[in-house]
Amino acid sequence: MNFIDIIEKKKENKALTEEEIKFFIENYVKGEIPDYQVSALLMAIYFNKLNLDETYYLTKYMIESGDTVDLTDVHGVKVDKHSTGGVGDTVTLVLGPLMASVGLVFAKMSGRGLGHTGGTLDKLEAIPGFNIYLNEEEFKNNLEKSNIAVIGQTDDIVPADKLLYALRDATDTVDNVSLISSSILSKKIALGTDALVLDIKVGSGAFMKDKESAIELSKLMVELGKKFNRNTKAIITNMSEPLGDAVGNSIEVIEAIKTLRGEGSKNLREISIKIGSSLMNMAGLTDSEEEAKKIIIEKIESGEALEKFKEMVELQGGDSTYIDDISKFKLSSIEESVIAEESGYVKEIEALEIGIVSRDLGAGRLKKGDDLDLGAGIYLYKKVGDYVKKGDKLATIYTEKADEVERAVERIKKAYKYSDEKEEYKLIIEEID
Amino acid sequence: MNFIDIIEKKKENKALTEEEIKFFIENYVKGEIPDYQVSALLMAIYFNKLNLDETYYLTKYMIESGDTVDLTDVHGVKVDKHSTGGVGDTVTLVLGPLMASVGLVFAKMSGRGLGHTGGTLDKLEAIPGFNIYLNEEEFKNNLEKSNIAVIGQTDDIVPADKLLYALRDATDTVDNVSLISSSILSKKIALGTDALVLDIKVGSGAFMKDKESAIELSKLMVELGKKFNRNTKAIITNMSEPLGDAVGNSIEVIEAIKTLRGEGSKNLREISIKIGSSLMNMAGLTDSEEEAKKIIIEKIESGEALEKFKEMVELQGGDSTYIDDISKFKLSSIEESVIAEESGYVKEIEALEIGIVSRDLGAGRLKKGDDLDLGAGIYLYKKVGDYVKKGDKLATIYTEKADEVERAVERIKKAYKYSDEKEEYKLIIEEID
Repeated sequence: MNFIDIIEKKKENKALTEEEIKFFIENYVKGEIPDYQVSALLMAIYFNKLNLDETYYLTKYMIESGDTVDLTDVHGVKVDKHSTGGVGDTVTLVLGPLMASVGLVFAKMSGRGLGHTGGTLDKLEAIPGFNIYLNEEEFKNNLEKSNIAVIGQTDDIVPADKLLYALRDATDTVDNVSLISSSILSKKIALGTDALVLDIKVGSGAFMKDKESAIELSKLMVELGKKFNRNTKAIITNMSEPLGDAVGNSIEVIEAIKTLRGEGSKNLREISIKIGSSLMNMAGLTDSEEEAKKIIIEKIESGEALEKFKEMVELQGGDSTYIDDISKFKLSSIEESVIAEESGYVKEIEALEIGIVSRDLGAGRLKKGDDLDLGAGIYLYKKVGDYVKKGDKLATIYTEKADEVERAVERIKKAYKYSDEKEEYKLIIEEID
Repeated sequence: MNFIDIIEKKKENKALTEEEIKFFIENYVKGEIPDYQVSALLMAIYFNKLNLDETYYLTKYMIESGDTVDLTDVHGVKVDKHSTGGVGDTVTLVLGPLMASVGLVFAKMSGRGLGHTGGTLDKLEAIPGFNIYLNEEEFKNNLEKSNIAVIGQTDDIVPADKLLYALRDATDTVDNVSLISSSILSKKIALGTDALVLDIKVGSGAFMKDKESAIELSKLMVELGKKFNRNTKAIITNMSEPLGDAVGNSIEVIEAIKTLRGEGSKNLREISIKIGSSLMNMAGLTDSEEEAKKIIIEKIESGEALEKFKEMVELQGGDSTYIDDISKFKLSSIEESVIAEESGYVKEIEALEIGIVSRDLGAGRLKKGDDLDLGAGIYLYKKVGDYVKKGDKLATIYTEKADEVERAVERIKKAYKYSDEKEEYKLIIEEID
């Protein structure tokens, strides 16, 4: 088999066979196909697309390029969730304890933040001592003990995705539903959970700019998940603003804890409960999402969900006194208010822009390996639907970078869009299963 | 400027600006843009094409990536020709002396053979002592003295094309008219001739599979040539068979000499006279191609054209006694006849296949740097339109590779296609100017 023939086939809009896709992934990972040939194929895929079978085989051989984690010997129904590029999205830290408290096993491998999106691992490291580097045995032991563990993905899981993602990023071939789906799902399938909910963000700052493309991606991923015998559901959610009120690392952990206490962000609570009740239903724990929702709210009110969070922190070596006393989290020393210069109903807060400002304040990375200021971030007092009067406080920024303050304040002000009338805001746009 | 933005622009079917194309070529040649990004752009160009302006700027900055040869101080009208991948195509060796004998300056930089196509330089080296490595001054001196010089292209001419061509070849992005045109024309324009005729081959074995795409390519190249103030014409010719009767190196030189003597191949003569009379007319030497054709035929009959060939050979250090006595050229020692197994009118001889067989017999290269057997090759006794009776001799092969003989004989037999009736064969299909 010759890789040029594979490029030519896709260029001529023919479907690749299982053998051809296997040849591609296996030899690319071995370093036997050069990047410049793969990028030509990726661009041909961008133009001529992959069909469902091709996407399935691509995902399959990406998974087979590395290790997989078999969770069959862990008792209980294992659940997982994934979100596509959220800002102020700390659902994992809320959902995980909720699921553990209702008796599901929340097994999650997370990533670090890059660009405008935060990373669960960075947030967890804001808790002193928290260790995200568990090996497979420790991971499973923790799941068995407390129903929850959130760890970093090792380099041995889907190495093909690491190579392909870096190449796609450098060659403007990221935006193809098959390439996106295989990248996300390969990592999810490599971890042997039973049920998976995908949170697909839609909006100008999201990967998917419009509802139609979000639906296309969701349908493909759900179909793919099922081809891998994984109970999969997609929920399309609005990214017309950052999800929670907090954007950063420590500040998002505080918000997650508050949300588990029944306080915290309305939207974060709504989505966490929605995904949680979907997972409970998919796992067969309840007959309806309404029933599941009630159970989840009980677990928040009884404090059992927060207990699970503490349990996870302790099992992973973190200082759980921070969970009891959130004032122990120290935010960055420079604190500056963002004051509204106009009045009106907030109709949008550009999530991408808020993510970038947060990154520039020190909370995020421009490139892998960059250091973070875990105390940096933004707290938004006004969200979509709120009425703002000129002079109101929109947000507070936290940073150690004095020279970034002025620019950050201006950018946040500009990220707020107003209208004269209160517009209906729909957080959960569509469900695909 | 960021190269990813340039990829994105072309991916979204927008025209690139002069500055963007300049940035691309300059930085690619400097090694500052990696191959994997360029191949993604090339594939996006394949799908979304380049318009005339983009193709012009691409060609312009490819030319500016290296040295150019200024011929203004050489007296006379300088002419050049290019053919796209011929088999048995030794027009240069016939046309050059013809042009020199009518008073035009034939200034040519040629290439070596690769794959199924022969190279003028290899053929010339079949003449003992012939030196294709002249420097610019020697090249110009020879042109001034005898109106003709054929030399190898130095690495300093259009280095961007060397890089791009190798990458296109490895990424299946060769077949785009703008990329083909810029590759061919950049090298032609870098050499400052006044008039240029392009011989665009069409047929199943040619670059251009059908007349329509040959016309598209021809029109683009003629238009581009004019944008560079170069008098340019394209002649679309039939590649339903190898052009001449001989395919190889020494064997093609013998045929060129015979053709200059008024013997030799009918088709080689016809195309050489056609291109020659076009160039004479373009140069303003004659008022009609008919008039030009008469002058050319006189130069063949008077022996003046052959004299010019000898003059070039002597000026470039070759042994001109070979021109007077073609029996001095030694063909390879194994000689085998190909005998027809069926009867009928020859309607096609697959040129690509004949080129490959000739290569396998030792006359061509699989990759750059491969050694050649200059005496190897094929002589075709039967050409399109000829009637063949079972048992007739179709061809003779010459090789030193005993183990290739049987396969070559079979492949040549299969390359011949017959019909019951004699079909009209049109060698010159269309002229574009």
